[in-house]
Amino acid sequence: MAEPFLYRLRVRYSECDLQGVLFNANYLAYIDHTITELWRAAYGGYTVMLDRGVDIVVAEVNMRFLGSARFDEEVDIEATVTNLGTTSVTTAFRFNRAATNEPLLAAEVRHVFIDPDTTVKRPMPDWAREGLAPWHVPAPTLDGPGS
Amino acid sequence: MAEPFLYRLRVRYSECDLQGVLFNANYLAYIDHTITELWRAAYGGYTVMLDRGVDIVVAEVNMRFLGSARFDEEVDIEATVTNLGTTSVTTAFRFNRAATNEPLLAAEVRHVFIDPDTTVKRPMPDWAREGLAPWHVPAPTLDGPGS
Amino acid sequence: MAEPFLYRLRVRYSECDLQGVLFNANYLAYIDHTITELWRAAYGGYTVMLDRGVDIVVAEVNMRFLGSARFDEEVDIEATVTNLGTTSVTTAFRFNRAATNEPLLAAEVRHVFIDPDTTVKRPMPDWAREGLAPWHVPAPTLDGPGS
Amino acid sequence: MAEPFLYRLRVRYSECDLQGVLFNANYLAYIDHTITELWRAAYGGYTVMLDRGVDIVVAEVNMRFLGSARFDEEVDIEATVTNLGTTSVTTAFRFNRAATNEPLLAAEVRHVFIDPDTTVKRPMPDWAREGLAPWHVPAPTLDGPGS
Repeated sequence: MAEPFLYRLRVRYSECDLQGVLFNANYLAYIDHTITELWRAAYGGYTVMLDRGVDIVVAEVNMRFLGSARFDEEVDIEATVTNLGTTSVTTAFRFNRAATNEPLLAAEVRHVFIDPDTTVKRPMPDWAREGLAPWHVPAPTLDGPGS
Repeated sequence: MAEPFLYRLRVRYSECDLQGVLFNANYLAYIDHTITELWRAAYGGYTVMLDRGVDIVVAEVNMRFLGSARFDEEVDIEATVTNLGTTSVTTAFRFNRAATNEPLLAAEVRHVFIDPDTTVKRPMPDWAREGLAPWHVPAPTLDGPGS
Repeated sequence: MAEPFLYRLRVRYSECDLQGVLFNANYLAYIDHTITELWRAAYGGYTVMLDRGVDIVVAEVNMRFLGSARFDEEVDIEATVTNLGTTSVTTAFRFNRAATNEPLLAAEVRHVFIDPDTTVKRPMPDWAREGLAPWHVPAPTLDGPGS
Repeated sequence: MAEPFLYRLRVRYSECDLQGVLFNANYLAYIDHTITELWRAAYGGYTVMLDRGVDIVVAEVNMRFLGSARFDEEVDIEATVTNLGTTSVTTAFRFNRAATNEPLLAAEVRHVFIDPDTTVKRPMPDWAREGLAPWHVPAPTLDGPGS
């Protein structure tokens, strides 16, 4: 009965483009901001991960744009862990306009755990797997089996 | 016998993160910088498009990260138009480290032509279709038929 | 008996540089984020200003860096209106590390009111002057008399 | 008979704001991009500096905005070293619209040399002083004597 992780961001002036809406690459930055908070909730945050000798990198991103977030609007972001693989974790995101609940973005990001010294991939630590479990809703993902 | 469109970017200090490499969302910004130059070559640029009463928005993004671009490195970017649909254009990107030719990113982005006043999608203008033709190499894409 | 306007920001991963600290230009972006909130409190926000036919641009910036904000730290920002001129407003900023109250930045920014169509400077509207008054603590400023 | 260091940047879509012009904090980022190239010309670049056990941080920034750089315009940037102090270097910048030579920004930035391990300030190395000399035009600066 996992619930999505919820986060809200307000669109900053500096994040918009000439069209008056959140610049496309900043949706990916918003995903990064959200996952920073998810990891904080799951096991104390990215810095804790580094202190434990583990780093993480983005391996794959899929994004479908469904609407445009405008300057000063609040955006509600739902994050769900859709796959806990051997060495990677996949997280799905839904962005909605807070005022109207209109969908703005559906996305999926796969991160891979690596050794910070060698940058070679390594198994997901148990504390990460356990920390992320409360938001784990298995779903069809970017990952093939056993990844 | 289309050739890819080529563009080179040097990684700026402000674009890197704590890991000393190009921040993940900035790869998508690099795609945007590249497509700005592709459109300049194809039909005079984004501003010309607006002057002709047409705007364009990102509809879909797929990215696979294959390596990391470090501060001050030059990145060679190849762009190929893989689908010229009814209302959308799909462009594929390959990023390589210029010094070694190692792959860094493979990506595909689908843009949709819209009416700037209504933001409703509209057919691709002929001048856009003709302008993009020199870089058109049909390939399996994000688009279904007729999109 | 004006009090400073208070705002708190947490340093995002994407805002840091190789040195592991907030990139220098992002301090100026943080000033922009803060003044967006100050203007919201003063008269409903930047969009309200535009709706009333007035725009505003940065004319002058002075910054002294006193420390470094690190990834994931919270930064307390105090903003005080130090001069309400004829056509311009000057705002002073103090950034402190929230956890320890160590100073990170002292800055002053002068904005000029303009006509959005002509971009020529124009007098500050009364509603802006009145809206900003609660945070007005006259102080030596960037402005000469009557500016 | 020093000449200014010259650098040209084209305004990227992602760097503009709702007003259709380069976002104010990005002028400071442009200064950073320019100084990266100046340091490359002077002594091989920022990475060489780190390899020699020296780091550098921004201590002071003064900016006067004189115009607005619009999307896709080229900006000519002139950099001049105005003070080579004991522990700090001050660099002055002029931004002009390339097409018309209209002034856009006048700025001055003071950097301080530090020990990367302790972050305590340290004397400017001789190789840095000698490397920067070709662009040194003494001028009234941010620095007091002997700084």
